[in-house]
Amino acid sequence: MITSPGNARMKAVIQMKQKAKVRRETDSFLAEGVKMFLEAPVERIREVYISESFSCPDKKLEQAVRKKLEQELHRKQRETVSQEVFGKISDTCSPQGILCVMKAYHYTLSDLLQKEAPLLLLLENIQDPGNLGTMLRAGEGAGIDGVILSADSADMGNPKTVRATMGSVYRVPFLYTESLADTIKALQERDVRVFAAHLQGKTDYDVCDYRGGSAFLIGNESRGLKPETAALADQYMKIPMKGAVESLNAGIAAALLMYEAARQRRKSE
Amino acid sequence: MITSPGNARMKAVIQMKQKAKVRRETDSFLAEGVKMFLEAPVERIREVYISESFSCPDKKLEQAVRKKLEQELHRKQRETVSQEVFGKISDTCSPQGILCVMKAYHYTLSDLLQKEAPLLLLLENIQDPGNLGTMLRAGEGAGIDGVILSADSADMGNPKTVRATMGSVYRVPFLYTESLADTIKALQERDVRVFAAHLQGKTDYDVCDYRGGSAFLIGNESRGLKPETAALADQYMKIPMKGAVESLNAGIAAALLMYEAARQRRKSE
Repeated sequence: MITSPGNARMKAVIQMKQKAKVRRETDSFLAEGVKMFLEAPVERIREVYISESFSCPDKKLEQAVRKKLEQELHRKQRETVSQEVFGKISDTCSPQGILCVMKAYHYTLSDLLQKEAPLLLLLENIQDPGNLGTMLRAGEGAGIDGVILSADSADMGNPKTVRATMGSVYRVPFLYTESLADTIKALQERDVRVFAAHLQGKTDYDVCDYRGGSAFLIGNESRGLKPETAALADQYMKIPMKGAVESLNAGIAAALLMYEAARQRRKSE
Repeated sequence: MITSPGNARMKAVIQMKQKAKVRRETDSFLAEGVKMFLEAPVERIREVYISESFSCPDKKLEQAVRKKLEQELHRKQRETVSQEVFGKISDTCSPQGILCVMKAYHYTLSDLLQKEAPLLLLLENIQDPGNLGTMLRAGEGAGIDGVILSADSADMGNPKTVRATMGSVYRVPFLYTESLADTIKALQERDVRVFAAHLQGKTDYDVCDYRGGSAFLIGNESRGLKPETAALADQYMKIPMKGAVESLNAGIAAALLMYEAARQRRKSE
């Protein structure tokens, strides 16, 4: 059992929790909590740390955790740590007592373009880690094929993002691009139409047709899309807003668009 | 200028920031930032505190702030405070330098039932303050007539909630109820149909008809609706989910339902 937060492995985990740079260098991210552990693909799990006081209110879940730990992982991959040490490596206020170091995902554009009419989310400079995770979760629910992020967006490996995905980070392909403009052009060459919710949009978002290859551009939470990025869209549309509302939360806007596309595709099945 | 965080007024504001109980006792809430100040109804503003270093990158906004301060508020209502003191009363990491103490809102059920076919959001035990604010913002955009919250939900006056509403807290009626069950019955007597997104729901959410009086029940972020509350709904429906997603973020689910109702009502106009 590890009982000292000064332990070299614990120091490494704490660094991964705090710094995107360390996660990049070690090609890792952290996945914390019972649900994240149970959904984690075994071949991606590098190490698992369990608090000495680990237990679940739901005994079936606890059994599932212990079974996966013992039957699917090597003894060397799992390590018990003291409650105090777990508090240091955890990113939450009330830790569930289990945390995995995962091998990072790397996708290519062609991974996201497997289907004939892909549905994609394009994120420019999204800053809120929780918001990013929520978008991935809603995106999986809506059936998107992937998320493309500008290099200056929040890190998908941020513990808050990973937690907010509720497991979708294991399943939805994503990639970062140095040039969103180049990526948009590549998508357009592959017959993916790029849509941007925009103040200048005249067509309601539920009137456009998203049954063909479609990508939704979503901009920064407070500043929206850069004008030069918005200019690359094939079509502007608007989400109608009543009252004095000028814009919606980026995650809400993304979910409305992705679910409208899902609705249209469901109807035409 | 107030330069001591020990100043009695500053101590009172800090208490209001931290404690729902103090906000309740003083019948107040805090609204921070330029947008929240500019949209604040003058008759609700009790006091405004401006940092000595207040300025905006956008000079037009700064001018609008100064104009409202000087032309619409009494000299006694506004007070300059040192940058250090502002840091203490502010709830944000990078304060914009302006904060109002507002008179709290009190609505009755009949305020929320002014229209013939009201559209309402019913929240049970929502805990995340930011999520709550985001729902109010999306709700205003979708055109809802009000939000009803169980007494154990997050406080609408929480500074994080207020900020996340982006001003909707000034415009969307809301009320807390000791008994969500009694309120649901009262709504049903007024011909408001109560819908709950539920795992047992068989009908897709975009097939139900929300053009008549409609209320959407949304439960706690991790546990969902209590079974006894869900049982009071007139109809269960489901939000279709692909992949391995079991549920959506409560704010996202609420937005999808409210915007689907808005869509149907727009089409039938």
